Amino acid sequence: MIRSYAAFEPKGTLKPHEFDPGPLPAAEVEIAVETCGLCHSDLSLINDDWGMSEYPLVPGHEIIGRVVETGAGVTHLSKGQRVGVGWFAHSCLTCQHCMSGDHNMCGQASGVAASWNGRTGGFADRVRSQAAWAVPLPEGVDAEKAGPLFCGGITVFNPLVQYGIRPTDRVGVIGIGGLGHLALKFLKAWGCEVTAFTSSDSKADEARGFGAHRVVNSRDKAALKAEAGRYDLVLSTVNVPLEWSSYMAALAPRGRLHMVGAVLDPMEISAFSLIGKQKDVSGTSVGAPSTIATMLDFCARHGITAQTEHMKMSLVNEAIAHLEAGKARYRIVLENDF
Amino acid sequence: MIRSYAAFEPKGTLKPHEFDPGPLPAAEVEIAVETCGLCHSDLSLINDDWGMSEYPLVPGHEIIGRVVETGAGVTHLSKGQRVGVGWFAHSCLTCQHCMSGDHNMCGQASGVAASWNGRTGGFADRVRSQAAWAVPLPEGVDAEKAGPLFCGGITVFNPLVQYGIRPTDRVGVIGIGGLGHLALKFLKAWGCEVTAFTSSDSKADEARGFGAHRVVNSRDKAALKAEAGRYDLVLSTVNVPLEWSSYMAALAPRGRLHMVGAVLDPMEISAFSLIGKQKDVSGTSVGAPSTIATMLDFCARHGITAQTEHMKMSLVNEAIAHLEAGKARYRIVLENDF
Repeated sequence: MIRSYAAFEPKGTLKPHEFDPGPLPAAEVEIAVETCGLCHSDLSLINDDWGMSEYPLVPGHEIIGRVVETGAGVTHLSKGQRVGVGWFAHSCLTCQHCMSGDHNMCGQASGVAASWNGRTGGFADRVRSQAAWAVPLPEGVDAEKAGPLFCGGITVFNPLVQYGIRPTDRVGVIGIGGLGHLALKFLKAWGCEVTAFTSSDSKADEARGFGAHRVVNSRDKAALKAEAGRYDLVLSTVNVPLEWSSYMAALAPRGRLHMVGAVLDPMEISAFSLIGKQKDVSGTSVGAPSTIATMLDFCARHGITAQTEHMKMSLVNEAIAHLEAGKARYRIVLENDF
Repeated sequence: MIRSYAAFEPKGTLKPHEFDPGPLPAAEVEIAVETCGLCHSDLSLINDDWGMSEYPLVPGHEIIGRVVETGAGVTHLSKGQRVGVGWFAHSCLTCQHCMSGDHNMCGQASGVAASWNGRTGGFADRVRSQAAWAVPLPEGVDAEKAGPLFCGGITVFNPLVQYGIRPTDRVGVIGIGGLGHLALKFLKAWGCEVTAFTSSDSKADEARGFGAHRVVNSRDKAALKAEAGRYDLVLSTVNVPLEWSSYMAALAPRGRLHMVGAVLDPMEISAFSLIGKQKDVSGTSVGAPSTIATMLDFCARHGITAQTEHMKMSLVNEAIAHLEAGKARYRIVLENDF
């Protein structure tokens, strides 16, 4: 039996929920959860903001733990090994995208935070994942704080890999929260000129501490206007609509406005703002297992960890309230106390 | 004195216009115009659709001719040499973008069809261009039909270079007109799977003749829906708003919707449609001189020319009416008869 905390209805309080996961599939591993990060998309799922939640729903997709059982077909992981699991916990492994290393674009990819498939998440004592998606933690990564790397981290690391961001690039990060603060740390280590866009003056000093060379108040229209033509990449981690034209104007020729925040309102993009200086608008979601492994190596080499607040998993509803109040600095990690 | 046809007011008929261009600047060449293509953006300029026209305005930016005079500082072109000039006829040559080979993104770039600087176009017996922007025609390019390559051609060729389009890619072209028909020819020679999206059934057979392997009626919603997930690149050459979400859905993972048509209405793009499968929306305008030279070599090797209709330059107003009526198949070239 797996013991967990589950939502039983949209916007519902999480309650204890025990269930029998059945026999372990051949390609999967069962993991004893040590910690699990609390991501803003857990709230979206609990609240059914995206109209695709099914209940009971066990959230949690920034999972660190140790393998306690391996399916009959699993050869590359062994009991006792420490691994992490994020947004996805399964993909088909045989389609063109999986075979090209783009497992995160597999049409059948699923996880507790993705298109389900009956999966359950990390607010539990145990969780299951396809072995291919359980990525071993390398030496030098602080396991206690590593959970948030598996969703928040890979979400902002992946674009740096996908688009060949160079250490000579000027990069802006919109929104300094769970994702944004990790983006600043990655970009500083990547060698870029790093600018934080934040509406919160209280975060300016901390943003500098994370690696920002410059901080721009995103509510100051004149300050934003003065950034025109500067950025090779602007990474938006927020999920609220902004005046995108200001950020398009802030891009240098060949610049890219990249969305990792799942803002629901359509973006109004003028074709002229793209055409004149060869600009791009793009988006990505998390990353493939190989990119997660690359990120973990990078984190180990540069000593990068999320800035975390730790709470017991039994206080998950208090943790959710803390996050909803916008008070998390910068990522809450729940410690399994089942 | 230069003899030309000029518009004297928005939407005005072109009338003969003679002017003294003054002494030839050191970095420029004067070209005796042989032919000049008629581009849809000439209409936009004459009609002041973009709110930036100045009159008298001598249109024409798909120019082929022979150098008749070289400025004191010009060393790499000589009298009698056949060259072409397109959208831009000048850039600063010293900014970061010019120095990186991105002359078309120079903030000071100008031409008769760009941000002016007092320039005059190719509906004239003579035209001037900075020598750097007068690109020699290589052996094997049919000079009579080469004009349209310098705007329509480079506009659709440049993205193939900029984004590293591969012969294994599946590419769709929206709009089979002056730009679109050249895109089909380039893509066929590039080795891609080529699909033409056209609202005109009458163009389907011709599109196949230009190189399309497949033709989709862009007004057939069911047909468009069936294209979901197919394209690595969709190149939009039209300047009217379409249901962009259908084309976003038609993109494969890592696919790109690329705008070269200057549609004025903002595009509504959902961040979700970008994020899930790492999609891009982008735009480019024409190309740098080095890319124009690369295109001309490619045209010579593959025997690519625009499909043209030829008219005397003195019939420029009739030519404009023919284009406005949507009857041009596929590019009108005006022959200098001054």
